[in-house]
Amino acid sequence: MSDEAALSAALSDLADCEEDVEKAEEDIELYRLKKLAPLYLHRDEIIQKIPGFWRVVLSQHDEFADHIKASDFEYVDAIKSITVHWKTFQDYEIEFSFNAIEGKLKDQTIRKHFLLKDEQLTSEPVDIGVPATAERKSFVDWFNWTGVSNAKEFPDGGELAALFSEDIYPYCVKYYTEAQRDVEDEESAGSSSEGELILD
Amino acid sequence: MSDEAALSAALSDLADCEEDVEKAEEDIELYRLKKLAPLYLHRDEIIQKIPGFWRVVLSQHDEFADHIKASDFEYVDAIKSITVHWKTFQDYEIEFSFNAIEGKLKDQTIRKHFLLKDEQLTSEPVDIGVPATAERKSFVDWFNWTGVSNAKEFPDGGELAALFSEDIYPYCVKYYTEAQRDVEDEESAGSSSEGELILD
Repeated sequence: MSDEAALSAALSDLADCEEDVEKAEEDIELYRLKKLAPLYLHRDEIIQKIPGFWRVVLSQHDEFADHIKASDFEYVDAIKSITVHWKTFQDYEIEFSFNAIEGKLKDQTIRKHFLLKDEQLTSEPVDIGVPATAERKSFVDWFNWTGVSNAKEFPDGGELAALFSEDIYPYCVKYYTEAQRDVEDEESAGSSSEGELILD
Repeated sequence: MSDEAALSAALSDLADCEEDVEKAEEDIELYRLKKLAPLYLHRDEIIQKIPGFWRVVLSQHDEFADHIKASDFEYVDAIKSITVHWKTFQDYEIEFSFNAIEGKLKDQTIRKHFLLKDEQLTSEPVDIGVPATAERKSFVDWFNWTGVSNAKEFPDGGELAALFSEDIYPYCVKYYTEAQRDVEDEESAGSSSEGELILD
């Protein structure tokens, strides 16, 4: 076999091998989902018993803060629960339960669907009953983000979706614990702590 | 049960659940290693048949370039192969095979061991037979990096280790393919291409 033919054969083998690696990565992702799904479900049930859990997590999260405006705080505070439902890591729904805000937002649970295809994340608009803002830069506008519209949309809506699904939801307990530590550090100067809230 | 006792019980359950999540994450990592190890081994064998593979990958990689100096180029070009041997993702060795550089570096294969413990990455110095530079900022100094020394060391040695183990080695084929595409784009203007090197 000539050098050129040998190189050509090696490159073809490499392409086949890379396909096998990609298949293995997909298999590993499904294994990950299968392992974590029941644990997350159990965790969701526990979190429901901890008042203000998501308010604490979201107020602890600097990167989330970068995506919202001061006028969004009341809507963020109204979030009762967040859950991510993965079909695969490329096809998932983020579920939000809101407490009512008198005259502004009704008590509701909605799911926003996201699909990653050909490296592009898209979504379908979800009506939470709050009028769109003129600038489309409010957290309430994010629920209408599609990722495909040419019209004005919430900026970096895909990044915020990934922040929920890849960071805030999986590591919520870490953020909650950090927030509790910060509170305890502040309290340790003087008054006694109100019970042991630190997790480890 | 009082509100306070209920909260305390929920927090304790949450801590237990988080331990289960951590155990599941460890299990998933081991599953990942088990799945990918034979594929990477096969890939290493194929790559050996592609002359200059690692030179192409390393010259394509902007972040790697940020870690080295112009005087390192000849040592980087002398790299014949790179392999990562994971015991776990926290305990691994990076193996380098070098071609000789007349009067400067002998033909050799070395392994540098890395251990991540309590969020700190450390390593043991490896003698490749090249004197340390005064500034300790050369790629050849990285082989002596320990992560624990108070003396002058290669800067961000742990970052470079992670770059090899988490990015360059796992995604080497992607970088190689990108480099070939760049070459083809440059050539497409005029002369004909020398055979099909694109992988997909």
